[in-house]
Parts: sequence; structure tokens; C-alpha cells
Amino acid sequence: MVNERKVLVIECTDSTGLIAKITNICFEYQLNIIRNDEFVDCDHNRFFMRTELEGQFSDKRMVDQLARALPKNATIRLVDPGRKRIVLMVTKEPHCLGELMMKSQYGSLNAEIIAVIGNHNTLSELTEKFSVPFHHVSHENISRELHEQQIKDIIDRYNPDHLVLAKYMRILTAGFVEHYPNKIINIHHSFLPAFIGAKPYHQAYERGVKIIGATAHFVNNDLDDGPIITQDVIRVDHRYSAEQMAEAGRHVEESVLAHALQQVLNEKVLVYGNRTVVFD
Amino acid sequence: MVNERKVLVIECTDSTGLIAKITNICFEYQLNIIRNDEFVDCDHNRFFMRTELEGQFSDKRMVDQLARALPKNATIRLVDPGRKRIVLMVTKEPHCLGELMMKSQYGSLNAEIIAVIGNHNTLSELTEKFSVPFHHVSHENISRELHEQQIKDIIDRYNPDHLVLAKYMRILTAGFVEHYPNKIINIHHSFLPAFIGAKPYHQAYERGVKIIGATAHFVNNDLDDGPIITQDVIRVDHRYSAEQMAEAGRHVEESVLAHALQQVLNEKVLVYGNRTVVFD
Amino acid sequence: MVNERKVLVIECTDSTGLIAKITNICFEYQLNIIRNDEFVDCDHNRFFMRTELEGQFSDKRMVDQLARALPKNATIRLVDPGRKRIVLMVTKEPHCLGELMMKSQYGSLNAEIIAVIGNHNTLSELTEKFSVPFHHVSHENISRELHEQQIKDIIDRYNPDHLVLAKYMRILTAGFVEHYPNKIINIHHSFLPAFIGAKPYHQAYERGVKIIGATAHFVNNDLDDGPIITQDVIRVDHRYSAEQMAEAGRHVEESVLAHALQQVLNEKVLVYGNRTVVFD
Amino acid sequence: MVNERKVLVIECTDSTGLIAKITNICFEYQLNIIRNDEFVDCDHNRFFMRTELEGQFSDKRMVDQLARALPKNATIRLVDPGRKRIVLMVTKEPHCLGELMMKSQYGSLNAEIIAVIGNHNTLSELTEKFSVPFHHVSHENISRELHEQQIKDIIDRYNPDHLVLAKYMRILTAGFVEHYPNKIINIHHSFLPAFIGAKPYHQAYERGVKIIGATAHFVNNDLDDGPIITQDVIRVDHRYSAEQMAEAGRHVEESVLAHALQQVLNEKVLVYGNRTVVFD
Repeated sequence: MVNERKVLVIECTDSTGLIAKITNICFEYQLNIIRNDEFVDCDHNRFFMRTELEGQFSDKRMVDQLARALPKNATIRLVDPGRKRIVLMVTKEPHCLGELMMKSQYGSLNAEIIAVIGNHNTLSELTEKFSVPFHHVSHENISRELHEQQIKDIIDRYNPDHLVLAKYMRILTAGFVEHYPNKIINIHHSFLPAFIGAKPYHQAYERGVKIIGATAHFVNNDLDDGPIITQDVIRVDHRYSAEQMAEAGRHVEESVLAHALQQVLNEKVLVYGNRTVVFD
Repeated sequence: MVNERKVLVIECTDSTGLIAKITNICFEYQLNIIRNDEFVDCDHNRFFMRTELEGQFSDKRMVDQLARALPKNATIRLVDPGRKRIVLMVTKEPHCLGELMMKSQYGSLNAEIIAVIGNHNTLSELTEKFSVPFHHVSHENISRELHEQQIKDIIDRYNPDHLVLAKYMRILTAGFVEHYPNKIINIHHSFLPAFIGAKPYHQAYERGVKIIGATAHFVNNDLDDGPIITQDVIRVDHRYSAEQMAEAGRHVEESVLAHALQQVLNEKVLVYGNRTVVFD
Repeated sequence: MVNERKVLVIECTDSTGLIAKITNICFEYQLNIIRNDEFVDCDHNRFFMRTELEGQFSDKRMVDQLARALPKNATIRLVDPGRKRIVLMVTKEPHCLGELMMKSQYGSLNAEIIAVIGNHNTLSELTEKFSVPFHHVSHENISRELHEQQIKDIIDRYNPDHLVLAKYMRILTAGFVEHYPNKIINIHHSFLPAFIGAKPYHQAYERGVKIIGATAHFVNNDLDDGPIITQDVIRVDHRYSAEQMAEAGRHVEESVLAHALQQVLNEKVLVYGNRTVVFD
Repeated sequence: MVNERKVLVIECTDSTGLIAKITNICFEYQLNIIRNDEFVDCDHNRFFMRTELEGQFSDKRMVDQLARALPKNATIRLVDPGRKRIVLMVTKEPHCLGELMMKSQYGSLNAEIIAVIGNHNTLSELTEKFSVPFHHVSHENISRELHEQQIKDIIDRYNPDHLVLAKYMRILTAGFVEHYPNKIINIHHSFLPAFIGAKPYHQAYERGVKIIGATAHFVNNDLDDGPIITQDVIRVDHRYSAEQMAEAGRHVEESVLAHALQQVLNEKVLVYGNRTVVFD
């Protein structure tokens, strides 16, 4: 039989001997450890481990055995690192959509984009160039709840592994977000200092910032406030207009989103509370 | 006669022909332009120019002639790019003080540190290693006004070109700040997102940020809100404790402060409103 | 009449009064200077100036007047900063082609890609998604000279402003290169230290490098040795396989090439000898 | 009894069950794993593990037990992460010396600099400011062998954990280097492309490079060719003279050297062949 590769992801309360217990069980099932990352958050007494395994996974009893060996509150996932299925949500800006399409179909992004949903129709043409179905779900003249219900109906038809907000510019309700726990990834601009409210790039321009950033994060409740996955910045100067700052921001946004998504797809991101452990 | 080098810095309302008028006058006084940087802020109709000149500056009429040729509101400075004299204000943290001492005495920082003032005595030993006088002005048991008056007395005795807050951890009053317009340079940590209030590194740690930054800026009224000179960031991850994040922050702080100060010393930073033009 | 914007680019031997002479003439023709960058290479006594002008350019005598006022060897270009027409040359790798297509059709790249030429047919499908003609010119079974002649015939039919080697993996002859002086832009990977010869990423991997870079440059004679326009790097570590290093390299390549091309299109890059002045 | 912390570093041929065997033994000795990093180089079938342990280390049989459990060729080190003792070698440039002195005495560098050896006397004053002994060992008028012997005599009197070449500008013989295997750390400038031979900054300047880098590495045989620990870069442009490029280079050198040394001191760097595994 040909060997397979899987990723074992474990999170639980810390105690002495956890790695020994876990790796003994892997050894018992004759699984070879290709890569192992482990982290203990001593402040919160929390244990995190990610293990890339190679071997035969036909014997399904291993996960049960792990569950018996580990603390009661442990979450144990044995996942296939194969190509994931994702749905994108967009509004009008094409840069993140285009980057993810290119990286998915011609690059190394380990995911198939199975559908794109837009609250405007602007990006249907770009989406269809790549032979991906585009669903236009207008938010006009209907309630927020009905709009989100229509979107949910489409998403659930595809049953994606992840939902990526590729510059989707509407705030999602708590109800929608809770339906997809730790499955929604968003990108937004970030500044030092932060600018709250409308037209952030105009504020940044008026303030003369020298750096513009982007943050990719999971969406929990508040749109821009979930666990951070990746951040990056780009330099600007006084010669940038507000529009040129926004353009620089778009460049770093598309790059950070693609990188964060790749890390999530490779099962390298563990979420706990409002933080992440990223075994990059 | 040996040629000298000076820097001409001009700011005024924009109008057609300004560069011609200015460079004609330079030509008339037989000054060669080594480097010229110019910027027009079209939104605010504002003209900025920085010119490195080489030649004889003995004829003092040139600046008057420029003043007659330029708009009434023009600020015209013909400055010597030579070594400046600076006073540092510190509290307890040594990293920025040490970096500036090294760069000043052994590196390329174009300034002599002529005195250090501390509201604690902690850094006297480090300061005196470099044969620079240290003045301990405790803030304890006296009013804020009296404390600042004592500091002002020392500063004014030295009459420095610039005052650098090298991790001086007390807020300065508006009265103090207005006494040294565009002369005070400060460094402070910056985050994406921003954290307001006490223990920012603990907040950043709890939020799981992936980037920590520092901003060097002029001090106008509010301590951390003046015109930005330079910013930079450093990467951190989940394995950093709050203290290790603070250590990473100190590293980027000392580097950003030294860089910003060098730009100011080289007369490359023009302030207007709450922004800067940096001809780096 | 509506005002236009043009860019004046001048290079000549340095002498006192050049900026005055040039800006006087601009003033005489009632042209407003929006932005002006100037640089003197003192080692080689060489003057460079780039001026963004706004006004009426109908009077064609201005350039002649500049030529009379400036040193004999001056090159003077008054160019339209409008959308340029470019031809791409590719082999099999899609990442640079895709990035430029996206930035050209959906982003801020100030150019129209009017044709793509490939020595393999691999990228015809991606090219045609974007409604751009693809020309397959196989190098097999014909002489290098004939192959280049066939490519030249196609290029000259389009008469592009620039020719971009977007991972074109064949060496061009001196004859071909000389036909398009300072018009050909190339991208190639760069390492510290450099690795010469075949399989550079395998060499970099074996050596355990921690940084991988990319350099965009003009092509003069030797493929990878012309004047550098832009460089950037990306971090890697021991966990990267040679293939993952190559993937990281592709990411930085596409980003550097798009940035360099944007600078060239905006007439911000002046070439002299084997160097560039980039007024970014 | 108070708990201690130690770091267990293991390298050996890879085989199934290694982590289980190692962590079982840690568990048996009631040691808690604070942090664990592991890496398998599949190409060379090599296993690397670094484990931070907390507990009682009084029972000395653990390492023997590990040796019996692991492959014959395993190297096993159980090290104290405490403050190390280092000797610096310098020539005339102060920047790396000053940075390491500051970080050692006032910052977070986990090392005591116990002596500085210079082949010139230039840096004695700076060294002695920090109350560290300086030994001037001139290379003039004596053979290379005798010079190195005199240096070795001083070094061996101090018996340091590491020897840091903080801009020591002479080539060391193979005999000297072999005397301190994986103990000598060097810093040198790096460029893309690389410049070989004399005056590299002049070459970089003539070539118009846009990025300047530095590489910290272990010294094996050839001075600049050992296993790379850390690299970083800094941006430059056409306005930098060769001297200003060198100054930018010095800034990145001191920063990279301090960072690499910190990683080595924290036992995060494992060397094998001409590569490193850095568990940062």
C-alpha cells in the first residue's frame, strides 16, 4: 500500500508527558513523524501540537485512543492536507479575487475556488474568465437577514472548507458569522496609528503616515477584530496621494490574504480565544 | 577661498516659476546645485524645496533677495549642514540613549550629544561612560510646572539645536512644548491595530499581533500625535511573551529614532501642519 | 483649452545654472512644475532631472530652445505619461504573466499588454483569457538567428514602447538586444551569496540561505547584467525545500517585475552606463 | 527544590518513533516540556530536535539513557541556557563591538563579553569604557602562525563559549578555525549580485545596486563561506555614495550579528554540513 500524509492537530490543557503520549500512539500505528511543531502557552497553561505524519491511516481507532490518553477538553483533528474547496465573497475591488484565482489555478495555493459570491455584479466577468461560477446576490431593497440567508443558501450548496472575504465590504451579522466558526477569513487595511471611521486612506494621508499595512484574520463577531493570522506592511511617503496610498494598500492586502490563506489551508493555524498559533 | 556647502530650505504657497526664480538667484551668486528636491502638495497648493549648494556664502544679500522674489508667506532657511548640538531627555530605559551615543561618537550621526537630562538617575553611569554630563532632575515631590522649569533651565544653558526624547516617559505640558517649536523629537511604539492605555505590549500580546512598530515624530501638543518623521516594524509571533515583544519593540525604537534624527540633522525633514515632507 | 501633463527628462554634463536655465524656459512657456527631481552624480559630473509639467504643449519650439541652452551632449525627452503599449515574452512559467495581466487590466499598471510571445505554447490559454493575442514561436529545429528574426518580425508589427521578459528563459543575442536599446526589461532571481550555473534554487537550498531575492533590470548585452531598476527579497528558512524556495522566489519575482515596470512606465527611471537613477 | 530550565538538543539519523523515545525519557525523569521544535531533513534522512525542559536535572543518568535509546551516531547535548561567556575579535571598525557591548550590558543579549582582542589598538578605548579587558595583538612583523598562536593563548586563558569576529578583518588559517569547531561566528556584507574582490561597496555603487545585505555565519574553513545563521538587507538608491552604502551596510551588519549571536546563545542554531537549522 502506498503511504499517505496527514496532519494531526491537537489542543488541550498542558500537562507533563503529553508529547510522549501522543508520539507513542503515532509510533504504535507505525506512523512516521515528518515534521512536528509544539507550543505551550504558559500564561494560559495551554498545549498546542501539529504533526505531519506519513504511513497508513486505515485503522480508525487511533483518534479514539488519543482522546482517551489526552485531557478531556482536548480537540483532536486528523486532517488530510489535500486541496481544499473555498468560496469567495467579493464586492467591487478585483485585486484579491485576481490574486487568489491566479495562485489557485496557476500557482501553489492549495485550494480550488469553487464559487464567488458578489453583492455587486462587477466582478462576474473576471471570475468567469477563470471558469468559476459567479453568484450575484444584491443587498438592495432587501433586509440584511434576507440577504445573508440568500448568501448562506448558496454557500451551503457548495459546502466549502473555508469562506474568504476577498474585499467583501458589508458587515456580517453575528448570526451569519457563528454559522461558520473559524471558517471565515477576512483581509483589511491596518495603519500605525489606527484610523477609525470612514475614508481611512484619506486620514492616513492627512496624517502623513510612512507605513501602510494589512491584516488577515478570522472573523468571529466584529468584522475587523478576530484572531490575527498574518500582517505585513509597505512603505509610502509624502509624494503618495490618498489614492496612491490606497493602491499601495491593495498590493499588500492581496499578498497578505494569499499568504494567510495558504497557512490556513496547510493546517498551520490554530485559533484559541482571540489569538492564533501559526506554525509557519 | 575654499568652497562651503549649505542647504537652502524653502516653503511657500505654490505658483508658476518658483524654481526658476530660486535657482536664478543661486546662479547669480555662483552657487552650484549639488542636489535639489522639490515637492508640491497640490491639495494644499504648497511648495517645498530643499537645495544643497556649494560655493561662497559670504554675500549675505542672497536670502533677502530670495525673500523679495518669493511669496510673502515664504519661510527661507539657509543652513549649515554641519554637526548639530543635541540634548537628550531620558527616564530609565538605556537602549535609545546607548544607540545615539554610539552613533554620535563612533558612527555617522551628525550630532554631538552635549547633555543628558533624566527624571531618574538610572542612566547617569551609561551617559558618563561617554564623557557626557548627566543632569538628574527628579519629578518627585514637586509640581509639574516646577519640574519642567528646572529642565528648561538646564536645556537653555546648553542652547541645543534639537531636543530628543530618548524614552522620556513623562508627558510634557503644552507650555514646555511650545517653547521648542519643531525642535523636540520623540519615539514611541506603534501597533496594528493600535492599543490605547496602559501596558500596550500586554495588550498586543493578548491580541496575538504579528508585527510591532515604532514611530519617530516631532512633538507639538499631544505627546504621541505630532508630525511623523519615520516608521518601521519588526515581526513577532505567538512564541513571543509580552516581555519579548517589548524587547523587539525596543530594538525597532532605537533604530527608528536614530534614523529619524539623522534625517532631521541633515535638514531633510520639512514640517507643515501635522505632516512632514522627508527628502530622504 | 484643457491643460495637459507631460514629463520632461534631461540628462547632460553638469554645470552651474542648469536648473535655472531649464526652469526659466518652462516658465516662459507658462508651464507649471508639479514635481521636480534632480540628481548630480558628482563622481561622473553628470546631471539628471525629471520634471512633471502642467500646461499647454502646443508650441513645439520649447525642446529646441532647451537644446540650445543645454550642453551639446544633452538628451532631452518631453514625454506623455499616458498609457504605454508593451509586448511580453514568456516561456512556461505563468506567475509574472498573470501578475502583469491583472495589474494591467484590473489594477494600476499604466500599460496595455498588446501581445504575448512564447517559445512554448504553454501560456496561450492564460493569455487568451485576458483577450490578448498569443504568438507561439518555437525555437526548436531552427537557428537562434532565425528564431529571433521571427520574434522581431512580430514585435515590430506591434511597435511596442517596451518589451518585458516575463520569465523568458532563453538567452538573447547581442544583435537582438541592440535592436531595442533600454527598452527590454528582465526579471531574475538573486541570492546572497550568488549562485552561478544550473539549478540555483537547489544550490541555495544546499547552502541554507535565509533570504531569496529578485532583480528587475534593463537588458543590454549579457542577460542578467544590465542596469538594475528594482530589487526585493523574501525570507526563507531550513524548512523550505528547494521547490518551496523556488515558489517564494516566484512570488518576489512577480512583485518586483510589476513594480519596476510601473516605475519605467512613469518615466521615473533614467539609465546611464550600467546604472540607473530612479526618481521613485 | 527549585525547578531549573535546560535545553536538550539532539541530532541523529531519522527513524520512526524518535520523538516518542525521547519524550518518554523526559517524562520518566519528570521533566516538563515547555517548548519543542523538531525538524526532519527528508533529503538527508536527518532528525533534529530542540526541547526546552523544566524540572530537576540532578539525576545524571538521563543523557546516558537517551544515548542508548537513540541511533549510534546521535549527538545529544543537555545545556544550560544561562549567560554565556564570549570573546570578541576586532580590527578598527567600532559598530559591531559597540552594539554587542550595549546589548550585553544594557540589553537582552544573554552573554558576558569577557575580553576583546584587536590586531589594532583602535578600539581599546571603546572596550574599556565598558570595563572589559582589551588585548592588542599586532600582526605586524610576525608570521601569521605566530600571530594566531598569540591570539589563541589569550582566548584559551578565557575559555569562552563562543568567539565572535566583530569585523575582524584578517583571514584565519584552517588550523585556527579547526581549533574552535562551530564556535566562531562571523559577520560579512552581502550583495545581490555578489561582488568578489577588493572594495565591494565601490563595486556595488558602480553597479547601482538597490539592496545591501549582511550575513552572519559560522566559520569553518573559508572565511565567508560557513553555515549561514541569519541574513538581512537594507535599501539604498542612486543618491548613496559608496561611503554611504558602506554606512548602511554597517548598520545592517551590527543588527544581523547581534540577532544571530542571540539565536546561537539561546541554543536555537543547529549546524550540519554547510547548513543550519534555526528554531527561531
